[in-house]
Amino acid sequence: MLWQDGHQPGFTGSALDREDLIRTDPDRLAAMTSSLSARLLALDGIDPVLDDRGMLGWKSLAEADPDSELIFLGVLDGRPRFTEVRPDLPEGATRSMAIFRVLDLLPPEEASTYAAARSLIDWHVRHGFCAKCGTATAIFRGGWGRNCGACGAEHFPRVDPVVIMLAEYEGRVLVGRQPRYPPRRYSALAGFLEPGESIEEAVARELHEEAGMKTWSVRYIVSQPWPFPSSLMMACIARVEDDALTIDYTELEDAIWVTRDEVVASMNGDPDARFLPPPPYAIAHTLFRRWLDETG
Amino acid sequence: MLWQDGHQPGFTGSALDREDLIRTDPDRLAAMTSSLSARLLALDGIDPVLDDRGMLGWKSLAEADPDSELIFLGVLDGRPRFTEVRPDLPEGATRSMAIFRVLDLLPPEEASTYAAARSLIDWHVRHGFCAKCGTATAIFRGGWGRNCGACGAEHFPRVDPVVIMLAEYEGRVLVGRQPRYPPRRYSALAGFLEPGESIEEAVARELHEEAGMKTWSVRYIVSQPWPFPSSLMMACIARVEDDALTIDYTELEDAIWVTRDEVVASMNGDPDARFLPPPPYAIAHTLFRRWLDETG
Repeated sequence: MLWQDGHQPGFTGSALDREDLIRTDPDRLAAMTSSLSARLLALDGIDPVLDDRGMLGWKSLAEADPDSELIFLGVLDGRPRFTEVRPDLPEGATRSMAIFRVLDLLPPEEASTYAAARSLIDWHVRHGFCAKCGTATAIFRGGWGRNCGACGAEHFPRVDPVVIMLAEYEGRVLVGRQPRYPPRRYSALAGFLEPGESIEEAVARELHEEAGMKTWSVRYIVSQPWPFPSSLMMACIARVEDDALTIDYTELEDAIWVTRDEVVASMNGDPDARFLPPPPYAIAHTLFRRWLDETG
Repeated sequence: MLWQDGHQPGFTGSALDREDLIRTDPDRLAAMTSSLSARLLALDGIDPVLDDRGMLGWKSLAEADPDSELIFLGVLDGRPRFTEVRPDLPEGATRSMAIFRVLDLLPPEEASTYAAARSLIDWHVRHGFCAKCGTATAIFRGGWGRNCGACGAEHFPRVDPVVIMLAEYEGRVLVGRQPRYPPRRYSALAGFLEPGESIEEAVARELHEEAGMKTWSVRYIVSQPWPFPSSLMMACIARVEDDALTIDYTELEDAIWVTRDEVVASMNGDPDARFLPPPPYAIAHTLFRRWLDETG
Protein backbone atom coordinates (compact mmCIF):
# COMPACT_ATOMS: atom_id res chain seq x y z
CA MET A 1 0.00 0.00 0.00
CA LEU A 2 1.18 3.49 -0.84
CA TRP A 3 -0.05 4.95 2.47
CA GLN A 4 1.47 2.72 5.13
CA ASP A 5 0.43 4.99 7.93
CA GLY A 6 -3.24 4.32 7.20
CA HIS A 7 -3.97 7.94 6.36
CA GLN A 8 -4.91 7.76 2.69
CA PRO A 9 -5.45 11.28 1.34
CA GLY A 10 -8.61 12.38 -0.40
CA PHE A 11 -8.66 12.08 -4.21
CA THR A 12 -6.25 9.12 -4.19
CA GLY A 13 -6.52 5.38 -4.71
CA SER A 14 -8.35 5.05 -8.03
CA ALA A 15 -8.07 1.58 -9.55
CA LEU A 16 -8.09 3.19 -13.00
CA ASP A 17 -5.32 1.85 -15.23
CA ARG A 18 -4.49 4.81 -17.44
CA GLU A 19 -3.08 2.58 -20.21
CA ASP A 20 -1.05 5.43 -21.64
CA LEU A 21 0.19 3.41 -24.63
CA ILE A 22 -3.37 3.21 -25.94
CA ARG A 23 -3.57 7.00 -26.16
CA THR A 24 -1.00 7.12 -28.94
CA ASP A 25 -2.20 3.98 -30.76
CA PRO A 26 -5.11 4.90 -33.08
CA ASP A 27 -6.17 1.27 -33.63
CA ARG A 28 -6.31 0.38 -29.94
CA LEU A 29 -8.00 3.69 -29.15
CA ALA A 30 -10.65 3.01 -31.78
CA ALA A 31 -11.18 -0.45 -30.30
CA MET A 32 -11.74 1.11 -26.87
CA THR A 33 -14.23 3.61 -28.30
CA SER A 34 -16.19 0.97 -30.15
CA SER A 35 -16.17 -1.56 -27.30
CA LEU A 36 -19.66 -2.50 -26.14
CA SER A 37 -18.40 -2.45 -22.55
CA ALA A 38 -17.13 1.16 -22.79
CA ARG A 39 -18.56 3.47 -20.15
CA LEU A 40 -19.05 7.24 -20.00
CA LEU A 41 -18.76 9.16 -16.72
CA ALA A 42 -22.16 10.58 -15.74
CA LEU A 43 -21.88 14.33 -15.14
CA ASP A 44 -24.16 17.24 -14.38
CA GLY A 45 -22.20 20.08 -15.96
CA ILE A 46 -18.78 19.20 -14.57
CA ASP A 47 -20.08 17.75 -11.27
CA PRO A 48 -20.45 13.99 -10.73
CA VAL A 49 -23.80 12.23 -10.77
CA LEU A 50 -23.80 9.47 -8.16
CA ASP A 51 -25.53 6.12 -8.53
CA ASP A 52 -27.85 4.60 -5.91
CA ARG A 53 -24.86 3.17 -4.03
CA GLY A 54 -23.35 6.64 -3.70
CA MET A 55 -20.59 5.83 -6.18
CA LEU A 56 -19.71 7.56 -9.47
CA GLY A 57 -22.41 7.03 -12.06
CA TRP A 58 -21.47 5.66 -15.51
CA LYS A 59 -23.58 5.34 -18.64
CA SER A 60 -23.24 3.94 -22.14
CA LEU A 61 -20.72 5.63 -24.38
CA ALA A 62 -23.54 5.85 -26.96
CA GLU A 63 -25.08 8.52 -24.71
CA ALA A 64 -22.20 10.93 -25.36
CA ASP A 65 -23.14 14.13 -27.18
CA PRO A 66 -22.15 13.56 -30.82
CA ASP A 67 -20.44 16.96 -30.79
CA SER A 68 -18.41 16.21 -27.65
CA GLU A 69 -14.67 15.66 -27.60
CA LEU A 70 -14.06 12.27 -25.94
CA ILE A 71 -11.33 11.67 -23.36
CA PHE A 72 -10.08 8.13 -22.80
CA LEU A 73 -9.54 7.95 -19.03
CA GLY A 74 -8.26 4.38 -18.97
CA VAL A 75 -9.54 0.92 -18.05
CA LEU A 76 -11.36 0.22 -14.80
CA ASP A 77 -12.86 -3.15 -13.84
CA GLY A 78 -12.03 -4.39 -17.33
CA ARG A 79 -14.05 -1.67 -19.05
CA PRO A 80 -12.80 1.27 -21.10
CA ARG A 81 -13.75 4.52 -19.35
CA PHE A 82 -14.38 7.86 -21.03
CA THR A 83 -15.46 11.33 -20.19
CA GLU A 84 -16.60 14.03 -22.60
CA VAL A 85 -15.97 17.71 -23.19
CA ARG A 86 -19.43 18.88 -24.19
CA PRO A 87 -19.70 21.85 -26.54
CA ASP A 88 -22.58 23.17 -24.44
CA LEU A 89 -20.81 23.08 -21.05
CA PRO A 90 -22.09 26.34 -19.56
CA GLU A 91 -19.59 29.12 -18.83
CA GLY A 92 -18.96 29.08 -15.11
CA ALA A 93 -20.01 25.41 -14.73
CA THR A 94 -16.58 24.77 -13.24
CA ARG A 95 -17.24 27.14 -10.36
CA SER A 96 -20.27 25.44 -8.78
CA MET A 97 -19.92 24.82 -5.04
CA ALA A 98 -22.24 21.78 -5.15
CA ILE A 99 -19.26 19.49 -5.66
CA PHE A 100 -18.06 20.02 -2.09
CA ARG A 101 -21.26 18.53 -0.68
CA VAL A 102 -20.79 15.49 -2.92
CA LEU A 103 -17.19 15.12 -1.77
CA ASP A 104 -18.30 14.71 1.83
CA LEU A 105 -19.95 11.45 0.70
CA LEU A 106 -17.69 10.07 -2.00
CA PRO A 107 -14.98 7.49 -1.13
CA PRO A 108 -11.45 8.75 -1.97
CA GLU A 109 -11.00 6.08 -4.67
CA GLU A 110 -14.08 7.35 -6.49
CA ALA A 111 -13.10 10.99 -5.99
CA SER A 112 -9.70 10.05 -7.42
CA THR A 113 -11.15 8.80 -10.71
CA TYR A 114 -13.39 11.84 -10.87
CA ALA A 115 -10.45 14.19 -10.20
CA ALA A 116 -8.66 13.07 -13.37
CA ALA A 117 -11.82 13.60 -15.44
CA ARG A 118 -12.65 16.97 -13.94
CA SER A 119 -9.14 18.40 -14.33
CA LEU A 120 -8.98 17.29 -17.95
CA ILE A 121 -12.41 18.65 -18.87
CA ASP A 122 -11.67 21.98 -17.25
CA TRP A 123 -8.34 22.19 -19.08
CA HIS A 124 -9.90 21.48 -22.48
CA VAL A 125 -12.66 24.05 -21.89
CA ARG A 126 -10.13 26.76 -21.10
CA HIS A 127 -7.46 25.77 -23.66
CA GLY A 128 -9.20 25.51 -27.03
CA PHE A 129 -6.67 27.78 -28.75
CA CYS A 130 -2.94 27.50 -29.35
CA ALA A 131 -1.06 29.62 -26.82
CA LYS A 132 1.82 29.89 -29.28
CA CYS A 133 -0.03 31.17 -32.37
CA GLY A 134 -3.70 31.73 -31.44
CA THR A 135 -5.24 29.14 -33.79
CA ALA A 136 -8.02 26.77 -32.65
CA THR A 137 -6.52 23.42 -31.60
CA ALA A 138 -7.81 19.84 -31.78
CA ILE A 139 -7.81 17.10 -29.19
CA PHE A 140 -5.21 14.33 -29.59
CA ARG A 141 -3.66 11.44 -27.63
CA GLY A 142 -7.08 10.24 -26.56
CA GLY A 143 -7.81 13.53 -24.84
CA TRP A 144 -4.50 13.91 -23.02
CA GLY A 145 -3.38 16.84 -25.14
CA ARG A 146 -4.29 19.28 -27.91
CA ASN A 147 -2.32 20.04 -31.03
CA CYS A 148 -2.22 22.95 -33.41
CA GLY A 149 -2.69 22.37 -37.12
CA ALA A 150 -1.22 25.78 -37.92
CA CYS A 151 2.10 25.91 -36.07
CA GLY A 152 2.45 22.27 -34.98
CA ALA A 153 2.67 23.07 -31.24
CA GLU A 154 1.56 20.34 -28.85
CA HIS A 155 -0.09 21.30 -25.59
CA PHE A 156 -0.53 19.07 -22.55
CA PRO A 157 -2.85 19.37 -19.54
CA ARG A 158 -1.50 21.51 -16.74
CA VAL A 159 -0.83 20.32 -13.23
CA ASP A 160 -0.04 23.20 -10.88
CA PRO A 161 2.12 22.24 -7.89
CA VAL A 162 1.07 23.82 -4.58
CA VAL A 163 2.93 23.64 -1.28
CA ILE A 164 0.80 23.36 1.87
CA MET A 165 2.51 23.36 5.21
CA LEU A 166 2.39 23.44 8.95
CA ALA A 167 5.06 25.62 10.53
CA GLU A 168 6.13 23.89 13.76
CA TYR A 169 7.74 25.54 16.78
CA GLU A 170 8.13 24.06 20.26
CA GLY A 171 5.24 21.64 19.99
CA ARG A 172 2.77 24.00 18.35
CA VAL A 173 1.81 24.45 14.70
CA LEU A 174 0.69 27.50 12.78
CA VAL A 175 -2.76 27.49 11.17
CA GLY A 176 -4.40 30.24 9.18
CA ARG A 177 -7.73 31.17 7.70
CA GLN A 178 -8.63 32.72 4.39
CA PRO A 179 -11.61 35.07 4.17
CA ARG A 180 -13.54 32.60 1.97
CA TYR A 181 -13.40 29.77 4.58
CA PRO A 182 -16.53 28.74 6.50
CA PRO A 183 -16.74 30.36 9.98
CA ARG A 184 -14.14 29.17 12.51
CA ARG A 185 -12.25 26.97 10.01
CA TYR A 186 -8.45 27.13 10.10
CA SER A 187 -6.10 25.12 7.93
CA ALA A 188 -2.48 24.82 6.85
CA LEU A 189 -0.99 27.73 4.89
CA ALA A 190 -0.52 27.14 1.17
CA GLY A 191 0.65 28.70 -2.06
CA PHE A 192 1.58 27.95 -5.66
CA LEU A 193 5.13 26.83 -6.34
CA GLU A 194 6.80 29.14 -8.89
CA PRO A 195 9.22 28.51 -11.75
CA GLY A 196 12.78 28.16 -10.47
CA GLU A 197 11.87 26.84 -7.01
CA SER A 198 12.20 23.50 -5.24
CA ILE A 199 9.42 22.31 -2.94
CA GLU A 200 11.59 23.10 0.08
CA GLU A 201 12.27 26.65 -1.15
CA ALA A 202 8.60 27.27 -1.99
CA VAL A 203 7.62 26.28 1.57
CA ALA A 204 10.22 28.65 3.03
CA ARG A 205 9.14 31.50 0.73
CA GLU A 206 5.42 31.08 1.46
CA LEU A 207 6.00 31.03 5.23
CA HIS A 208 8.12 34.15 4.88
CA GLU A 209 5.61 35.97 2.67
CA GLU A 210 2.46 35.04 4.55
CA ALA A 211 3.67 34.97 8.14
CA GLY A 212 7.15 36.56 8.21
CA MET A 213 8.80 33.33 9.37
CA LYS A 214 12.31 32.04 8.85
CA THR A 215 12.36 28.32 8.02
CA TRP A 216 15.07 25.98 9.35
CA SER A 217 14.03 22.75 7.70
CA VAL A 218 11.27 21.26 5.58
CA ARG A 219 9.97 17.71 5.67
CA TYR A 220 7.71 16.46 2.89
CA ILE A 221 4.83 14.36 4.28
CA VAL A 222 2.27 13.41 1.63
CA SER A 223 0.49 14.65 -1.53
CA GLN A 224 -2.86 14.62 -3.30
CA PRO A 225 -4.36 15.92 -6.54
CA TRP A 226 -6.84 18.77 -6.05
CA PRO A 227 -9.05 19.13 -9.12
CA PHE A 228 -10.08 22.79 -8.68
CA PRO A 229 -8.98 23.03 -11.39
CA SER A 230 -5.79 20.96 -11.44
CA SER A 231 -3.41 21.34 -8.50
CA LEU A 232 -0.95 18.93 -6.97
CA MET A 233 -1.00 19.54 -3.21
CA MET A 234 2.32 18.73 -1.54
CA ALA A 235 2.01 18.72 2.25
CA CYS A 236 5.06 19.51 4.40
CA ILE A 237 6.05 20.29 7.98
CA ALA A 238 8.53 23.14 8.42
CA ARG A 239 10.57 23.86 11.52
CA VAL A 240 10.83 27.60 11.99
CA GLU A 241 13.19 29.87 13.91
CA ASP A 242 10.70 31.40 16.35
CA ASP A 243 6.98 32.01 16.81
CA ALA A 244 6.85 35.73 15.99
CA LEU A 245 4.25 36.40 13.28
CA THR A 246 4.02 39.10 10.62
CA ILE A 247 0.79 38.21 8.88
CA ASP A 248 0.13 39.23 5.27
CA TYR A 249 -3.50 40.29 5.55
CA THR A 250 -3.90 40.40 1.77
CA GLU A 251 -3.57 36.58 1.84
CA LEU A 252 -4.80 35.61 5.30
CA GLU A 253 -7.58 36.81 7.55
CA ASP A 254 -5.85 35.39 10.62
CA ALA A 255 -3.12 32.96 11.70
CA ILE A 256 -2.68 31.38 15.14
CA TRP A 257 -0.39 28.91 16.90
CA VAL A 258 -2.24 25.86 18.18
CA THR A 259 -1.18 23.12 20.56
CA ARG A 260 -1.42 19.38 20.02
CA ASP A 261 -4.40 19.21 22.40
CA GLU A 262 -6.16 21.93 20.44
CA VAL A 263 -5.61 20.05 17.16
CA VAL A 264 -6.89 16.82 18.77
CA ALA A 265 -10.05 18.56 19.98
CA SER A 266 -10.60 20.09 16.54
CA MET A 267 -10.09 16.81 14.65
CA ASN A 268 -12.35 14.98 17.13
CA GLY A 269 -15.19 17.41 16.49
CA ASP A 270 -15.21 18.69 20.07
CA PRO A 271 -17.82 21.51 20.12
CA ASP A 272 -15.51 23.58 22.32
CA ALA A 273 -12.54 23.15 19.98
CA ARG A 274 -10.60 26.32 19.25
CA PHE A 275 -11.14 25.93 15.50
CA LEU A 276 -12.92 23.80 12.89
CA PRO A 277 -10.58 21.54 10.92
CA PRO A 278 -10.30 21.20 7.14
CA PRO A 279 -12.64 18.57 5.60
CA PRO A 280 -11.45 14.94 5.40
CA TYR A 281 -10.89 15.07 1.62
CA ALA A 282 -8.38 17.95 1.96
CA ILE A 283 -4.70 17.09 2.34
CA ALA A 284 -4.47 19.47 5.31
CA HIS A 285 -6.67 16.99 7.18
CA THR A 286 -4.22 14.17 6.39
CA LEU A 287 -1.36 16.45 7.39
CA PHE A 288 -2.91 17.11 10.82
CA ARG A 289 -3.42 13.34 11.30
CA ARG A 290 0.20 12.66 10.41
CA TRP A 291 1.45 15.39 12.77
CA LEU A 292 -0.68 13.97 15.60
CA ASP A 293 0.73 10.48 14.92
CA GLU A 294 4.28 11.77 14.98
CA THR A 295 3.87 13.74 18.17
CA GLY A 296 1.60 11.27 19.98
CA MET B 1 19.55 25.25 6.06
CA LEU B 2 16.98 23.58 3.86
CA TRP B 3 19.33 20.67 2.96
CA GLN B 4 20.55 19.41 6.34
CA ASP B 5 22.16 16.36 4.82
CA GLY B 6 24.66 18.53 2.97
CA HIS B 7 23.43 17.42 -0.45
CA GLN B 8 22.05 20.64 -1.91
CA PRO B 9 20.46 19.90 -5.29
CA GLY B 10 21.39 21.72 -8.47
CA PHE B 11 19.32 24.80 -9.38
CA THR B 12 18.59 25.58 -5.70
CA GLY B 13 19.78 28.13 -3.17
CA SER B 14 19.29 31.46 -4.94
CA ALA B 15 19.40 34.44 -2.60
CA LEU B 16 16.85 36.18 -4.82
CA ASP B 17 13.96 37.69 -2.83
CA ARG B 18 11.04 37.43 -5.24
CA GLU B 19 9.18 40.29 -3.52
CA ASP B 20 5.86 39.13 -4.93
CA LEU B 21 3.89 42.07 -3.52
CA ILE B 22 5.83 44.40 -5.82
CA ARG B 23 4.55 42.54 -8.89
CA THR B 24 1.00 43.73 -8.29
CA ASP B 25 1.91 47.27 -7.13
CA PRO B 26 2.38 49.50 -10.20
CA ASP B 27 4.10 52.28 -8.23
CA ARG B 28 6.65 50.01 -6.57
CA LEU B 29 7.21 48.16 -9.83
CA ALA B 30 7.87 51.45 -11.63
CA ALA B 31 10.33 52.42 -8.87
CA MET B 32 12.19 49.14 -9.41
CA THR B 33 12.33 49.68 -13.17
CA SER B 34 13.61 53.24 -12.83
CA SER B 35 16.12 52.46 -10.07
CA LEU B 36 19.68 53.28 -11.07
CA SER B 37 20.81 50.09 -9.32
CA ALA B 38 18.50 47.84 -11.39
CA ARG B 39 20.31 45.04 -13.22
CA LEU B 40 19.45 43.01 -16.31
CA LEU B 41 20.49 39.37 -16.66
CA ALA B 42 23.09 39.00 -19.43
CA LEU B 43 21.94 36.39 -21.95
CA ASP B 44 23.05 34.98 -25.26
CA GLY B 45 19.70 33.94 -26.73
CA ILE B 46 18.31 32.20 -23.65
CA ASP B 47 21.69 30.94 -22.36
CA PRO B 48 23.57 32.73 -19.57
CA VAL B 49 26.63 34.88 -20.20
CA LEU B 50 29.09 34.43 -17.34
CA ASP B 51 31.30 37.16 -15.92
CA ASP B 52 35.06 36.78 -15.37
CA ARG B 53 34.43 35.14 -12.00
CA GLY B 54 32.31 32.45 -13.65
CA MET B 55 29.11 33.82 -12.13
CA LEU B 56 25.94 35.07 -13.89
CA GLY B 57 26.62 38.26 -15.81
CA TRP B 58 24.40 41.31 -15.25
CA LYS B 59 24.23 44.59 -17.12
CA SER B 60 22.44 47.92 -16.89
CA LEU B 61 18.68 47.83 -17.36
CA ALA B 62 19.20 50.61 -19.91
CA GLU B 63 20.71 47.96 -22.18
CA ALA B 64 17.38 46.13 -22.51
CA ASP B 65 15.94 46.06 -26.01
CA PRO B 66 13.29 48.84 -26.08
CA ASP B 67 10.86 46.35 -27.64
CA SER B 68 11.45 43.67 -24.97
CA GLU B 69 8.92 42.66 -22.36
CA LEU B 70 10.60 43.06 -18.95
CA ILE B 71 10.28 40.50 -16.15
CA PHE B 72 10.91 41.60 -12.57
CA LEU B 73 12.76 38.64 -11.02
CA GLY B 74 13.07 40.14 -7.54
CA VAL B 75 15.75 41.77 -5.40
CA LEU B 76 19.24 40.32 -4.98
CA ASP B 77 22.06 41.97 -3.02
CA GLY B 78 19.84 45.02 -2.61
CA ARG B 79 19.39 45.51 -6.34
CA PRO B 80 16.26 45.02 -8.45
CA ARG B 81 16.85 42.22 -10.96
CA PHE B 82 15.20 41.86 -14.35
CA THR B 83 15.28 39.66 -17.38
CA GLU B 84 13.81 40.40 -20.79
CA VAL B 85 11.72 38.62 -23.39
CA ARG B 86 13.30 39.90 -26.60
CA PRO B 87 11.11 40.15 -29.68
CA ASP B 88 14.01 38.79 -31.77
CA LEU B 89 14.71 35.67 -29.69
CA PRO B 90 15.41 33.19 -32.47
CA GLU B 91 13.08 30.22 -32.95
CA GLY B 92 14.81 27.22 -31.45
CA ALA B 93 17.04 29.32 -29.15
CA THR B 94 15.58 27.38 -26.23
CA ARG B 95 16.90 24.11 -27.59
CA SER B 96 20.66 24.87 -27.62
CA MET B 97 22.78 22.26 -25.85
CA ALA B 98 25.48 24.82 -24.93
CA ILE B 99 23.76 25.43 -21.59
CA PHE B 100 24.78 22.03 -20.27
CA ARG B 101 28.48 22.86 -20.60
CA VAL B 102 27.86 26.09 -18.66
CA LEU B 103 26.01 24.19 -15.94
CA ASP B 104 29.06 22.05 -15.24
CA LEU B 105 30.75 25.27 -14.05
CA LEU B 106 27.96 27.32 -12.46
CA PRO B 107 27.35 27.14 -8.67
CA PRO B 108 23.82 25.89 -7.83
CA GLU B 109 22.85 29.26 -6.31
CA GLU B 110 23.61 30.99 -9.60
CA ALA B 111 21.93 28.27 -11.65
CA SER B 112 18.89 28.70 -9.37
CA THR B 113 18.49 32.40 -10.20
CA TYR B 114 19.01 31.60 -13.86
CA ALA B 115 16.42 28.79 -13.75
CA ALA B 116 13.64 31.20 -12.76
CA ALA B 117 14.57 33.57 -15.60
CA ARG B 118 14.91 30.85 -18.20
CA SER B 119 11.61 29.15 -17.38
CA LEU B 120 9.76 32.47 -17.47
CA ILE B 121 11.29 33.59 -20.79
CA ASP B 122 10.52 30.26 -22.40
CA TRP B 123 6.94 30.40 -21.15
CA HIS B 124 6.36 33.92 -22.50
CA VAL B 125 7.83 32.99 -25.89
CA ARG B 126 5.50 30.02 -26.24
CA HIS B 127 2.40 31.61 -24.68
CA GLY B 128 1.81 34.89 -26.47
CA PHE B 129 -1.85 34.09 -27.20
CA CYS B 130 -4.86 33.42 -25.01
CA ALA B 131 -5.49 29.68 -24.79
CA LYS B 132 -9.13 30.42 -24.02
CA CYS B 133 -10.01 32.70 -26.97
CA GLY B 134 -6.96 32.93 -29.27
CA THR B 135 -6.31 36.68 -28.87
CA ALA B 136 -2.78 38.07 -28.36
CA THR B 137 -2.11 38.60 -24.65
CA ALA B 138 -0.04 41.15 -22.72
CA ILE B 139 2.43 40.71 -19.89
CA PHE B 140 1.23 41.68 -16.39
CA ARG B 141 2.24 41.25 -12.75
CA GLY B 142 5.79 42.28 -13.51
CA GLY B 143 6.19 39.39 -15.93
CA TRP B 144 4.66 36.64 -13.76
CA GLY B 145 1.60 36.28 -15.95
CA ARG B 146 -0.18 37.33 -19.14
CA ASN B 147 -3.72 38.60 -19.46
CA CYS B 148 -6.18 38.76 -22.29
CA GLY B 149 -7.78 42.07 -23.22
CA ALA B 150 -10.53 40.30 -25.18
CA CYS B 151 -11.93 37.67 -22.78
CA GLY B 152 -10.29 38.74 -19.52
CA ALA B 153 -8.56 35.38 -18.90
CA GLU B 154 -5.40 35.46 -16.79
CA HIS B 155 -2.61 33.01 -17.55
CA PHE B 156 0.24 32.09 -15.24
CA PRO B 157 3.59 30.43 -15.94
CA ARG B 158 3.50 26.66 -15.96
CA VAL B 159 5.46 24.41 -13.65
CA ASP B 160 5.27 20.75 -14.72
CA PRO B 161 5.74 18.27 -11.87
CA VAL B 162 7.89 15.25 -12.73
CA VAL B 163 8.52 12.20 -10.56
CA ILE B 164 12.01 10.69 -10.69
CA MET B 165 12.71 7.55 -8.72
CA LEU B 166 14.96 4.71 -7.76
CA ALA B 167 13.16 1.40 -7.41
CA GLU B 168 14.84 -0.45 -4.53
CA TYR B 169 14.85 -4.21 -3.98
CA GLU B 170 17.10 -6.17 -1.62
CA GLY B 171 19.93 -3.66 -1.55
CA ARG B 172 19.94 -2.86 -5.27
CA VAL B 173 18.38 0.00 -7.21
CA LEU B 174 17.03 0.17 -10.74
CA VAL B 175 18.65 2.58 -13.21
CA GLY B 176 17.75 3.13 -16.83
CA ARG B 177 19.03 4.88 -19.90
CA GLN B 178 17.23 6.85 -22.55
CA PRO B 179 18.49 6.78 -26.14
CA ARG B 180 19.49 10.47 -25.99
CA TYR B 181 21.87 9.98 -23.04
CA PRO B 182 25.65 10.17 -23.52
CA PRO B 183 27.26 6.70 -23.88
CA ARG B 184 27.25 4.54 -20.73
CA ARG B 185 25.15 6.99 -18.67
CA TYR B 186 22.33 5.55 -16.56
CA SER B 187 20.02 7.49 -14.28
CA ALA B 188 16.83 7.24 -12.25
CA LEU B 189 13.59 6.60 -14.17
CA ALA B 190 11.28 9.59 -14.52
CA GLY B 191 8.00 10.79 -15.96
CA PHE B 192 5.49 13.62 -15.87
CA LEU B 193 2.86 13.52 -13.16
CA GLU B 194 -0.65 13.61 -14.67
CA PRO B 195 -3.89 15.31 -13.61
CA GLY B 196 -5.65 13.30 -10.90
CA GLU B 197 -2.50 11.70 -9.42
CA SER B 198 -0.57 12.10 -6.19
CA ILE B 199 3.24 11.97 -6.23
CA GLU B 200 3.12 8.50 -4.72
CA GLU B 201 0.69 7.25 -7.37
CA ALA B 202 2.67 8.77 -10.23
CA VAL B 203 5.82 6.97 -9.01
CA ALA B 204 3.95 3.65 -8.88
CA ARG B 205 2.42 4.21 -12.34
CA GLU B 206 5.73 5.15 -13.97
CA LEU B 207 7.51 2.12 -12.51
CA HIS B 208 4.67 -0.04 -13.74
CA GLU B 209 4.62 1.47 -17.23
CA GLU B 210 8.36 1.65 -17.81
CA ALA B 211 9.57 -1.47 -16.01
CA GLY B 212 6.51 -3.59 -15.18
CA MET B 213 7.07 -3.26 -11.44
CA LYS B 214 4.63 -3.35 -8.56
CA THR B 215 5.37 -0.68 -5.94
CA TRP B 216 4.96 -1.33 -2.21
CA SER B 217 5.87 2.06 -0.80
CA VAL B 218 7.18 5.44 -1.90
CA ARG B 219 9.42 7.77 0.07
CA TYR B 220 9.91 11.35 -1.11
CA ILE B 221 13.54 12.44 -0.78
CA VAL B 222 14.21 15.86 -2.32
CA SER B 223 13.27 18.19 -5.20
CA GLN B 224 14.71 20.70 -7.66
CA PRO B 225 13.48 22.95 -10.44
CA TRP B 226 14.63 21.87 -13.90
CA PRO B 227 14.33 24.76 -16.37
CA PHE B 228 14.06 22.74 -19.61
CA PRO B 229 11.61 24.31 -19.93
CA SER B 230 9.94 24.40 -16.52
CA SER B 231 9.77 21.14 -14.58
CA LEU B 232 9.68 20.44 -10.87
CA MET B 233 11.70 17.27 -10.29
CA MET B 234 10.49 15.31 -7.25
CA ALA B 235 12.93 12.55 -6.33
CA CYS B 236 11.68 9.44 -4.54
CA ILE B 237 12.78 5.95 -3.52
CA ALA B 238 10.22 3.18 -4.11
CA ARG B 239 10.28 -0.27 -2.58
CA VAL B 240 9.07 -2.79 -5.13
CA GLU B 241 7.68 -6.30 -4.91
CA ASP B 242 10.40 -8.14 -6.84
CA ASP B 243 13.20 -7.55 -9.35
CA ALA B 244 11.53 -8.94 -12.49
CA LEU B 245 11.64 -6.36 -15.28
CA THR B 246 9.33 -5.74 -18.24
CA ILE B 247 11.01 -2.82 -19.94
CA ASP B 248 9.04 -0.42 -22.16
CA TYR B 249 11.53 0.04 -24.99
CA THR B 250 9.56 2.99 -26.38
CA GLU B 251 10.68 4.93 -23.27
CA LEU B 252 13.94 3.25 -22.25
CA GLU B 253 16.89 1.85 -24.15
CA ASP B 254 17.87 -0.31 -21.17
CA ALA B 255 17.33 -0.74 -17.43
CA ILE B 256 19.56 -2.62 -14.97
CA TRP B 257 19.74 -3.38 -11.27
CA VAL B 258 22.90 -2.02 -9.66
CA THR B 259 24.46 -2.70 -6.26
CA ARG B 260 25.60 -0.14 -3.72
CA ASP B 261 29.24 -0.83 -4.63
CA GLU B 262 28.46 -0.23 -8.29
CA VAL B 263 26.79 3.10 -7.50
CA VAL B 264 29.76 4.10 -5.31
CA ALA B 265 32.21 3.32 -8.14
CA SER B 266 30.08 5.26 -10.60
CA MET B 267 29.72 8.34 -8.36
CA ASN B 268 33.47 8.25 -7.56
CA GLY B 269 34.34 8.36 -11.26
CA ASP B 270 36.02 4.96 -11.21
CA PRO B 271 37.00 4.26 -14.86
CA ASP B 272 35.88 0.65 -14.45
CA ALA B 273 32.47 1.63 -13.08
CA ARG B 274 29.53 -0.22 -14.57
CA PHE B 275 27.88 3.04 -15.66
CA LEU B 276 28.40 6.78 -15.83
CA PRO B 277 26.29 8.72 -13.31
CA PRO B 278 24.02 11.69 -13.98
CA PRO B 279 25.73 15.11 -13.78
CA PRO B 280 26.01 16.87 -10.38
CA TYR B 281 23.35 19.47 -11.25
CA ALA B 282 20.70 16.77 -11.88
CA ILE B 283 18.50 15.68 -8.99
CA ALA B 284 19.25 12.03 -9.80
CA HIS B 285 22.82 12.75 -8.65
CA THR B 286 21.51 14.05 -5.32
CA LEU B 287 19.20 11.04 -5.10
CA PHE B 288 22.13 8.62 -5.52
CA ARG B 289 24.07 10.51 -2.80
CA ARG B 290 21.12 10.30 -0.45
CA TRP B 291 20.64 6.59 -1.10
CA LEU B 292 24.35 5.95 -0.45
CA ASP B 293 24.11 7.91 2.82
CA GLU B 294 21.07 5.93 3.92
CA THR B 295 22.57 2.57 3.12
CA GLY B 296 26.15 3.36 4.23
